[in-house]
Amino acid sequence: MDQKEKQIESKLVYDGKVIKLYLDKVKTPNGNEALREIVKHNGGVCLLALVDNKVILEKQYRYAYDKVLYELPAGKLEANEDSYEAGIRELEEETGYKAASLISYGCMYPTCGYSNEIIYLYKAEGLTKTKRHLDQDENIDLEYVDLETVKKMILNNEIVDAKSICLLSKYFLKEK
Amino acid sequence: MDQKEKQIESKLVYDGKVIKLYLDKVKTPNGNEALREIVKHNGGVCLLALVDNKVILEKQYRYAYDKVLYELPAGKLEANEDSYEAGIRELEEETGYKAASLISYGCMYPTCGYSNEIIYLYKAEGLTKTKRHLDQDENIDLEYVDLETVKKMILNNEIVDAKSICLLSKYFLKEK
Repeated sequence: MDQKEKQIESKLVYDGKVIKLYLDKVKTPNGNEALREIVKHNGGVCLLALVDNKVILEKQYRYAYDKVLYELPAGKLEANEDSYEAGIRELEEETGYKAASLISYGCMYPTCGYSNEIIYLYKAEGLTKTKRHLDQDENIDLEYVDLETVKKMILNNEIVDAKSICLLSKYFLKEK
Repeated sequence: MDQKEKQIESKLVYDGKVIKLYLDKVKTPNGNEALREIVKHNGGVCLLALVDNKVILEKQYRYAYDKVLYELPAGKLEANEDSYEAGIRELEEETGYKAASLISYGCMYPTCGYSNEIIYLYKAEGLTKTKRHLDQDENIDLEYVDLETVKKMILNNEIVDAKSICLLSKYFLKEK
């Protein structure tokens, strides 16, 4: 890997609840020094769950965009948490469906230019209806949408959330 | 929009080259106060360009993951820059192909939980061979890969970059 950049120095600039921000000094392959702003995040998990052949979509307000977005169920990992276990938990908490198992659809890197975040993608299998357990300030509406409509919502820009597009598209590409 | 969170206070924590980090205090719909860590970014543009029916893929080292990743050509926007113009420029700089026009494939929000970044997606049309103009520390290898192989690379997790999966998948879903 002759493009590798070597860390000279790493400075923690901000230590937050969701993210940590580092400013690293690196040596580039041609010998120059450069600065890299890196957002560190524990990563996340995103779930495709079908109920009666309909996709469980969430509508959730996102402060960073000041908009309500359509997303698949998802959640943050705790430090070093296993994404499979987190996926089972987050799906049940947000939708009230407990999965018997999850099938991996790989992962995606949301912003490879400045973050180390990885979101693991799963399809839930063997759903049993239980109960939702939202956090006090989680405000999530659920919609059950058929697969053809979901595909149109990706193509007409109604679904713009990256993790949701990646997982749904991988499912559609695999099914074809 | 009854889920809206109202900004009480916004504090700039870090003002960097690529990102700015804000810590905002908000009032949630049920009247509680909460903190939001928000990464602000000018946004970006990502390009699908076909040469002899092969996709131009880039292989680029990404420090945040300490890995070489496959990506579509892409670039950051300057503040308030038009994504269409930026798309034409970035494609030519990184690949040495000038597009006569771009077709919009919408946009994607890479990390809606903590960032306001939007990446605009385009397919390039009418390519003319010119010359690459990489920045001094840009180290990008190009590969020309047929569409079926690219689809396999998404499904087998060789392509994990979110913007690339989103744009390629939208192209594949639309073509079907």
